[in-house]
Amino acid sequence: MAAFDKLHYSQSNSGALLCAGLDPALDKMPSNFPKRPQSVYQFLAEIIDATKDLVCAYKLNFAFFEVFGSEGFEILKKTFDYIPAHIFKIADAKRGDIGNTSKAYAEACFDYFGADCATVNPLMGYDSVAPFLNWKDKSVFILGLTSNSGSNDFQRLNCAGKPLYKRIFAETSKWASAGSLGYVVGATHPGEISDLRTEFNDRIFLIPGIGAQGGDIEAVLTANAKGPCLINVSRDLLYASVREDFAEKARERAIYYNRLLTSNP
Amino acid sequence: MAAFDKLHYSQSNSGALLCAGLDPALDKMPSNFPKRPQSVYQFLAEIIDATKDLVCAYKLNFAFFEVFGSEGFEILKKTFDYIPAHIFKIADAKRGDIGNTSKAYAEACFDYFGADCATVNPLMGYDSVAPFLNWKDKSVFILGLTSNSGSNDFQRLNCAGKPLYKRIFAETSKWASAGSLGYVVGATHPGEISDLRTEFNDRIFLIPGIGAQGGDIEAVLTANAKGPCLINVSRDLLYASVREDFAEKARERAIYYNRLLTSNP
Repeated sequence: MAAFDKLHYSQSNSGALLCAGLDPALDKMPSNFPKRPQSVYQFLAEIIDATKDLVCAYKLNFAFFEVFGSEGFEILKKTFDYIPAHIFKIADAKRGDIGNTSKAYAEACFDYFGADCATVNPLMGYDSVAPFLNWKDKSVFILGLTSNSGSNDFQRLNCAGKPLYKRIFAETSKWASAGSLGYVVGATHPGEISDLRTEFNDRIFLIPGIGAQGGDIEAVLTANAKGPCLINVSRDLLYASVREDFAEKARERAIYYNRLLTSNP
Repeated sequence: MAAFDKLHYSQSNSGALLCAGLDPALDKMPSNFPKRPQSVYQFLAEIIDATKDLVCAYKLNFAFFEVFGSEGFEILKKTFDYIPAHIFKIADAKRGDIGNTSKAYAEACFDYFGADCATVNPLMGYDSVAPFLNWKDKSVFILGLTSNSGSNDFQRLNCAGKPLYKRIFAETSKWASAGSLGYVVGATHPGEISDLRTEFNDRIFLIPGIGAQGGDIEAVLTANAKGPCLINVSRDLLYASVREDFAEKARERAIYYNRLLTSNP
């Protein structure tokens, strides 16, 4: 399958725009799990079992595994492997470096972990992103306009009449078609999503920032104007309950979000 | 010791400005090593043994370990641990994400791997960098102007009269003092190094891009005007020979570079 085709298949199969973000943190995990790295895999496996028919994708945030070192990378690999083959898997690694280094990062994401897609930081320019585009069946989400407050510091700087993030869209969209290159755009910026959709209506937007970060689903969907997207929810789903019913409650949150996502414009 | 103090100590102790970049790649390793991840540790340990009295720092490029997954992370940890305690250790990871994620990346670099310093990508702004500044005895190098050709794509964009990389210097230099926040500036840009030194003469520059990437040491040192710096050499030292004499040849290259670095202006 080519690049984003698997995502389209996964979305039409599940009927869901929902992407579940897997950001495991020992201090937030249900109290029945011993607070050690080995618990993370069991916790995530139960979350995946409880939500796999309700999501089109899982987004695995590398930082929360790396913090446990080699054991964390082992758990990350096992978690990637545990996700059913037909579901789209995103390596949320935000990598980017000079060419031969980015090539090694891309091989880690795609060949070792088996992700379908990776998030990539575009600051270092074309040769830092290009190695990620060398797999015909893989895709990338470029950091467009991120959900955090720090997105004001550089991404909105006026670069010859346009904010930097728009320059990044304009330039990086030349590097690959909408079939393999999409963008991360934070749910906290509905005005900018609406504006971006006038020019980039065929690009897939990975939209994080719903829930814990304060993004509003209704505003996002209106702004997105039926453009291709997946909406990521991480903490609000993973930590829906700190008791033994955590998987059931995560499922309820996934159903809740899917209802919002399909009933809205 | 506070932040960059260990680097100053390491530099005055060794008399060296040279930082050896550890970017292991199976296809470039000496032919006496079997082409498997386990060889990497032995190879790097021999390189460290042969150069440890000639360098002020080692820079470990995470990508080249990540590509081997959990086994690679184990080798990365063992390599960090193998470096003598008095030598400055840089986690060249180029991380950067929203606050709680960057915190996990910083913990991985500093607490798990025990690095003294990490390279950080500033695109996502203050809250993506701040977690790396929470260790009193650790420091960061912000990507200032990178050595690759892609640095032309965004880092040089005109942002209200100044190139983006200068905006990044101006803004991020408010976030921490020169004692704990320095910059990556590519050796391929001597003109810009000279210009940056007029305004940022107390910031430590980590300067990669010598050797394989084409940067010229003499031009860099003249441009740097005795500003605090460390000059990184990776491939040209690691792969000085593909035969059994690789460690001896690496040592010769380190001596060669140290001579250039001290005999020049």
